[in-house]
Amino acid sequence: MLTGEREMDKDIIIGIIGAGRIGKLHAENLVKGNMGVRVKTIADIYMDEDIRSWAKDLGIPVVACNVEEIFDDAEINTVFICSSTNTHTEFIMRCAQTGKDIFCEKPIGSDLSEISSALAAVNKSGVNLQVGFVRRFDHNHKAVRDCVKSGRVGRPEIVKITSRDPEPPPVDYVKVSGGIFFDMMIHDFDMARYLAGSEVVSVFAAGSVMVSEEIGKAGDIDTAIVTLKFENGTIGVIDNSRRAAYGYDQRTEVHGALGCVKTENDTANLAMVSTASGVASEKPLWFFLERYNEAFLKEVRDFIDAIQGRREVSVTGEDAFKAVIIAEAATKSYQENRPVMISEIVC
Amino acid sequence: MLTGEREMDKDIIIGIIGAGRIGKLHAENLVKGNMGVRVKTIADIYMDEDIRSWAKDLGIPVVACNVEEIFDDAEINTVFICSSTNTHTEFIMRCAQTGKDIFCEKPIGSDLSEISSALAAVNKSGVNLQVGFVRRFDHNHKAVRDCVKSGRVGRPEIVKITSRDPEPPPVDYVKVSGGIFFDMMIHDFDMARYLAGSEVVSVFAAGSVMVSEEIGKAGDIDTAIVTLKFENGTIGVIDNSRRAAYGYDQRTEVHGALGCVKTENDTANLAMVSTASGVASEKPLWFFLERYNEAFLKEVRDFIDAIQGRREVSVTGEDAFKAVIIAEAATKSYQENRPVMISEIVC
Amino acid sequence: MLTGEREMDKDIIIGIIGAGRIGKLHAENLVKGNMGVRVKTIADIYMDEDIRSWAKDLGIPVVACNVEEIFDDAEINTVFICSSTNTHTEFIMRCAQTGKDIFCEKPIGSDLSEISSALAAVNKSGVNLQVGFVRRFDHNHKAVRDCVKSGRVGRPEIVKITSRDPEPPPVDYVKVSGGIFFDMMIHDFDMARYLAGSEVVSVFAAGSVMVSEEIGKAGDIDTAIVTLKFENGTIGVIDNSRRAAYGYDQRTEVHGALGCVKTENDTANLAMVSTASGVASEKPLWFFLERYNEAFLKEVRDFIDAIQGRREVSVTGEDAFKAVIIAEAATKSYQENRPVMISEIVC
Amino acid sequence: MLTGEREMDKDIIIGIIGAGRIGKLHAENLVKGNMGVRVKTIADIYMDEDIRSWAKDLGIPVVACNVEEIFDDAEINTVFICSSTNTHTEFIMRCAQTGKDIFCEKPIGSDLSEISSALAAVNKSGVNLQVGFVRRFDHNHKAVRDCVKSGRVGRPEIVKITSRDPEPPPVDYVKVSGGIFFDMMIHDFDMARYLAGSEVVSVFAAGSVMVSEEIGKAGDIDTAIVTLKFENGTIGVIDNSRRAAYGYDQRTEVHGALGCVKTENDTANLAMVSTASGVASEKPLWFFLERYNEAFLKEVRDFIDAIQGRREVSVTGEDAFKAVIIAEAATKSYQENRPVMISEIVC
Repeated sequence: MLTGEREMDKDIIIGIIGAGRIGKLHAENLVKGNMGVRVKTIADIYMDEDIRSWAKDLGIPVVACNVEEIFDDAEINTVFICSSTNTHTEFIMRCAQTGKDIFCEKPIGSDLSEISSALAAVNKSGVNLQVGFVRRFDHNHKAVRDCVKSGRVGRPEIVKITSRDPEPPPVDYVKVSGGIFFDMMIHDFDMARYLAGSEVVSVFAAGSVMVSEEIGKAGDIDTAIVTLKFENGTIGVIDNSRRAAYGYDQRTEVHGALGCVKTENDTANLAMVSTASGVASEKPLWFFLERYNEAFLKEVRDFIDAIQGRREVSVTGEDAFKAVIIAEAATKSYQENRPVMISEIVC
Repeated sequence: MLTGEREMDKDIIIGIIGAGRIGKLHAENLVKGNMGVRVKTIADIYMDEDIRSWAKDLGIPVVACNVEEIFDDAEINTVFICSSTNTHTEFIMRCAQTGKDIFCEKPIGSDLSEISSALAAVNKSGVNLQVGFVRRFDHNHKAVRDCVKSGRVGRPEIVKITSRDPEPPPVDYVKVSGGIFFDMMIHDFDMARYLAGSEVVSVFAAGSVMVSEEIGKAGDIDTAIVTLKFENGTIGVIDNSRRAAYGYDQRTEVHGALGCVKTENDTANLAMVSTASGVASEKPLWFFLERYNEAFLKEVRDFIDAIQGRREVSVTGEDAFKAVIIAEAATKSYQENRPVMISEIVC
Repeated sequence: MLTGEREMDKDIIIGIIGAGRIGKLHAENLVKGNMGVRVKTIADIYMDEDIRSWAKDLGIPVVACNVEEIFDDAEINTVFICSSTNTHTEFIMRCAQTGKDIFCEKPIGSDLSEISSALAAVNKSGVNLQVGFVRRFDHNHKAVRDCVKSGRVGRPEIVKITSRDPEPPPVDYVKVSGGIFFDMMIHDFDMARYLAGSEVVSVFAAGSVMVSEEIGKAGDIDTAIVTLKFENGTIGVIDNSRRAAYGYDQRTEVHGALGCVKTENDTANLAMVSTASGVASEKPLWFFLERYNEAFLKEVRDFIDAIQGRREVSVTGEDAFKAVIIAEAATKSYQENRPVMISEIVC
Repeated sequence: MLTGEREMDKDIIIGIIGAGRIGKLHAENLVKGNMGVRVKTIADIYMDEDIRSWAKDLGIPVVACNVEEIFDDAEINTVFICSSTNTHTEFIMRCAQTGKDIFCEKPIGSDLSEISSALAAVNKSGVNLQVGFVRRFDHNHKAVRDCVKSGRVGRPEIVKITSRDPEPPPVDYVKVSGGIFFDMMIHDFDMARYLAGSEVVSVFAAGSVMVSEEIGKAGDIDTAIVTLKFENGTIGVIDNSRRAAYGYDQRTEVHGALGCVKTENDTANLAMVSTASGVASEKPLWFFLERYNEAFLKEVRDFIDAIQGRREVSVTGEDAFKAVIIAEAATKSYQENRPVMISEIVC
């Protein structure tokens, strides 16, 4: 189905692939978020009683072990891809073939040529594709970006992103994650482009194993600082850690010709307690489910609005592709201990 | 129906009286808040097409001009009273007579003997009654209260509440509002009791017309400071203004033997912009719908939980009564320019 | 010596009366503050070796037990009165008689007619008199005042002052202090006038003994909230406590027609530590010597500038008189549990 | 004079070389700071009437065009080297030869072998040498360091330093400055070592000309981000800009195994103004004279204490040498666009 032919305000009938944490989260937001859509099917190759029971309670009528039940269902016109990264490009292709709009979790993939092929298929078919860079929908980061766009701080000169998880994932997860740059910093690569308003031209990655020897044994690092150079001369820096004892640390900053805008972490409340031992306030919200709770809802609402109104989606396949390229360059930079040009990755 | 006989986890079928701003807000939270309840009827003596259309969209099947349609409906077991203050006690009596649980907006009334009678009827019938002191459910004020209860700041010595509306209501509203102490500071009287953990014994009210001459002509004031003395020796102070150019100003503070806990206003985001002209951050959220958005949801959820689980409701008719008594004392104090004992009001 | 006859930039030769904490502080600021003045004599009826040794180290040539050595010394043209409150008016009279400029610590006295007489003598003689309301020279409170004066927050409507000492003074001190309103809140009465830019017309004082039973037995209170009404309709509130476990709590706030300006407490540094147990920052500076350290220096420098340049001093005897009147009214209000008009005190 | 032979609490007689901004600042702190020292001579090859007049007012008896007047003066036992960087090592050698203790401004030099020779001479002669890394004496940065040392945030994993000047220096200054890494970031290299408690092993520098084309034409950059790797695995990042429209931006942060400590900028006051247009607070203090005002005094006091008490000075020649090596590595890294090992610089 081509863009020009789609109807405005069509009924959205959704199939969700993957019933893990993020698949469930999107399902609940779609069902309870009063968006006027219908979640018809959820598919997962690891189907069990818990998922069936959860789906039933939520009112999702079809539970499937085979994703083909989604692609074969002509009524389903929209698919949420929330399965493991290695399946993303294949499922995107299948959606494109069957004319279904796509919301795909990040990262869109790890193999650049597969991603290229998938995006080509999407373009050809004319379906919509949005990628789950949820942080763009966060009230704080968006306020930073809006401030930059408004010109209030002038042309960006320095972009700074701090992004630290509260605790490392299980090492088994780390082993298949693609490494810190693909699994964790991928969000920050997207955020850096979003804030700088310019494309990355080169990357230098420094990393260390400070948090978990197991992560080191698995061939990954847990602490990293990446320097980015942008086309327009802006320079950026991202620091990641797999552990922040005080919770999820998510801060952004843009320094420009006329000033600087930055944002602190959200907390559960603003109470401040002053006693003989000091002044104490709340820690940052613990992890992404708490911190980006609202953003996940806004992200899905934004996607539904886009495909209903036939306007362009906010976060495109191109955005997803570029973040992967930067992750590839960062990985190479870390491995070879030298700055890597983006043009070395894509030529 | 007496307490002892009610079933756990009964089906909650709700009738709402009053389709003004607050009635609609509760209706939407009940319908969209995934609470497992059914809103069957909404009644308003000023029924119009807008309300009918809104109710239809929300899926409320019955729209009535006559509240008796609610009281006469045996299926409805729970009533939200969101009509004008002067109708509250009568509707509470009718609910008690017909065995329906009650959520009543604040203030519960303005005539002390009518309130007494209504509460007596509630007690006799055994229905539940919760009053809409929504601020108790705010994350910030609750954190202050929890801190006090934990003993971390010691025995409360000073309680401070700042509560300022962004802009004055229409003067026609002011004329029937019962005055600033009944209409606006009533929330703070409840908050003061909630934070101090003690009962008020006397009140001194100072007031001024600073914001609107029209409010003054209507016989009311728009700026007020009230000092409270509590049974346990704690002293408290509330300041109210009908206008805060920067938005809704809602701060609380408790100073105790071991320290002090206080909370600032919520803002839409935490971005801070530093430029040559200074460091700028967001204003407080504009008004109660924004600031207490979450709290309104929590409040209703708390009420539904209470009546489903047959535990005591969180904010009782007694709480509502006491706030009205303090408002009465404050009004008298302002009029007679002298401190007024609570015992002068209730004897 | 009359104002008209004094020379510009005369040599300032200073005598200090009282070698207690505050007398020593002023002496050190005068000597080490590079003000181009000479401290010739310090007098104290309780002279001891420690004071002599301290004075010698500081380079003060004359140490006296008898204050008349100061009044009799024609070379001394400026006197700092830092002795106990009950001696202030007498020493002011003596300075006026001997033509010496005066810096007098707060409060200027406790007996209204004595103060009147002293001020009359000052006016007649034409000497300068500045009173030690040091908080006017604090960077934070001054910024609040400057903001109000600039019109940025519009006409003041509510003035709020929080002033809490870290710990109560010895009860022997309390007994001769004149009570919390004369000894402690006197500073806040001056601050309230300074911030409101209007004169107080009535006062209501509520108080409690929460901190120290001994203070209660001594006939004083340790916790107080005072409501002030100003000529221009502004209302104000001051809260005092003799104990703040977290240090000296000194905050001011002015709410006006166009907005609100307020200030927080200073801390020793801005480090914030986030750990699993929360986010911790520094307590307020411990007490007035730390918090108003700079202000004490600025205050003295301001006085020296004034008397050298023959401009009017910043904080006048009239200011001191008015603060005492308010303290008198507050004391009466607390004792009689009713609002007291300033006109009842001075007629 | 060798260390072992020096007397405790000797009289400190000081000669200052260089009467520019920083030389004058130290002179004033030494004279007015009540340190019990005597500034005898100030020498500058560009002597003029302004300096003579300033020195006279300050009470410095000898003003010289020739620095030899300082080295030849046997009474002078302590020298402050505040002349241009290219003279530092030579003057250090002369001090060592003449047995005078040395306070030398940063950087200690730019030629590594000259610095080595100078330090060798210092070691041989036994004179004290302290280098002017003033930021170590700042209350905020010191609080960060103290927190790290206390173990409260655990082993350091990430060190972050933001250091931005309010406005670029004249391009003539830039031309002889040695470049941003020697002139500006040298402070941050020292701070990074101070905070990390470990030695730098490699450096990667990214830079850009964003602020001033003239600086670019002069062969320098004005915006830079440098990544540091430390011996213990810690990674660090410094961002510098020659322009921050809002003032001097000086922030530090250490993230460790148990938490994170960071500090914000100092401001002139803590007033916050809330109006319809937002919440406004003060900008950071404008530049180093304001921000490090107290630190300059503490630094000199610390040096005087050290040389009087014969304890080791706080910031050694070795510290200065290491900062220069890092600056050398950063310069090389920027020029060759590759990470540079410290061992490439010193072998």
